[in-house]
Amino acid sequence: MIKIGGNVIDDKDKLSSFLKDFALIKERKILIHGGGNLATNIADKLNIPQQIIDGRRITDAETLKVITMVYAGYINKNIVALLQANNCNAVGLSGADGNLIRAHKRDHLTIDYGFAGDIDNVNNEWLIKLLDDDFTPVISPVTHDKKGQLLNTNADTIAQEIAKSVASQYSVTLIYCFEKKGVLKNPEDESSVIAKINSSTYNELKEKKIVHSGMIPKLDNAFTALESGVKNVIIGKAEQLTQLIARSSGTSIENE
Amino acid sequence: MIKIGGNVIDDKDKLSSFLKDFALIKERKILIHGGGNLATNIADKLNIPQQIIDGRRITDAETLKVITMVYAGYINKNIVALLQANNCNAVGLSGADGNLIRAHKRDHLTIDYGFAGDIDNVNNEWLIKLLDDDFTPVISPVTHDKKGQLLNTNADTIAQEIAKSVASQYSVTLIYCFEKKGVLKNPEDESSVIAKINSSTYNELKEKKIVHSGMIPKLDNAFTALESGVKNVIIGKAEQLTQLIARSSGTSIENE
Repeated sequence: MIKIGGNVIDDKDKLSSFLKDFALIKERKILIHGGGNLATNIADKLNIPQQIIDGRRITDAETLKVITMVYAGYINKNIVALLQANNCNAVGLSGADGNLIRAHKRDHLTIDYGFAGDIDNVNNEWLIKLLDDDFTPVISPVTHDKKGQLLNTNADTIAQEIAKSVASQYSVTLIYCFEKKGVLKNPEDESSVIAKINSSTYNELKEKKIVHSGMIPKLDNAFTALESGVKNVIIGKAEQLTQLIARSSGTSIENE
Repeated sequence: MIKIGGNVIDDKDKLSSFLKDFALIKERKILIHGGGNLATNIADKLNIPQQIIDGRRITDAETLKVITMVYAGYINKNIVALLQANNCNAVGLSGADGNLIRAHKRDHLTIDYGFAGDIDNVNNEWLIKLLDDDFTPVISPVTHDKKGQLLNTNADTIAQEIAKSVASQYSVTLIYCFEKKGVLKNPEDESSVIAKINSSTYNELKEKKIVHSGMIPKLDNAFTALESGVKNVIIGKAEQLTQLIARSSGTSIENE
């Protein structure tokens, strides 16, 4: 289970090279992709103002339209076409397709996040069937509420929930690809990757403020996944996918 | 196998009511959708000039981007979410997904149609598997060349090719929904629907110029489908889907 974010998606050459490496993975595999800058660019050109509160995008109806177009349409189908060219039998899915991911509109006492979805259920039966039939699901971060409403859902969370949901059936490795080589001791120094983090060293890292802000939800997601039966979680750079899989790069998150 | 075009897609209430009727069909079913005005609106807002030659849109790279966003993303996923709300287990697919429809960039001596695709092959094995597993494929008119390139492909042609490809396995009825109640004797008079057309009456209608312009490729498609084993082809209004299926409305195209 591999999650890629915006920095790979926005760079055509990086994406193409990443997908070549991904296609070579022999084991059953799932790709979850985030958004990238394209959604923001398109929203700007269409004069849809983007509102961010506490680091989260507020998904009004017009923003949801752009997200559905860009994430579930343009990015998803281009990734699928590139994987097919690399002889990987990819199928691009949103959470609405085959009722793959059912979610509900986020409830919050003070902030209206708009059409942001928190996950209720993953249709892991179908996912397992697809994997056993040699398909490679490529999942966009758009879910639905089974009442006709599409919802924007965080791709990291989708990756974690899906990893959990198939962990009953398979030995799952979850790889979060992002712009750095791993969790860094010194954010300025790419060679300071922390090779392993377990729950006690995680607490230390948080206390010493070595790990902070955007990294915390990522690591919290990782530990939640481990507690739910996912075997390994690795965080690292998309350009080093092969090394991440071989465990010669990135940060490995471990349950003790 | 039912194809809907822009006029239903552009009207939220019509679309929702059509999908309710569609979801009630008990037999195995496939929905193919076209585009509608949204792609043109978005292209206008993004300042992408649209070029039409001989009634066909020239698909340059920027137009293909819009088509992929709008057709394979926004329209496809909204239809899927609405069908899921009506307890129809819809899966939205482009031709790239699972290598469903392989096409090639159109060759033409004098006109460069850009990224317009002519169909080479339909993966009917997978389609039949999905239908037998009680899924309802919802297909957007975006195909691929299996070399990483997405292509814009006419939705009427996709409907005909897919109907042909599953005709070996099932008794297929192909329904083309458009803005009129059927093929009309008098284009100004909605009550002048021609109930049946066979190949000899088709020739007469063409000679008398009762059938002309945009209707001819639709009817040619219909006859090609019938010659390839499709059992029935019906042309009519999306709002009358139930009557079209019951044969109490629309034009039935017949092989003699």
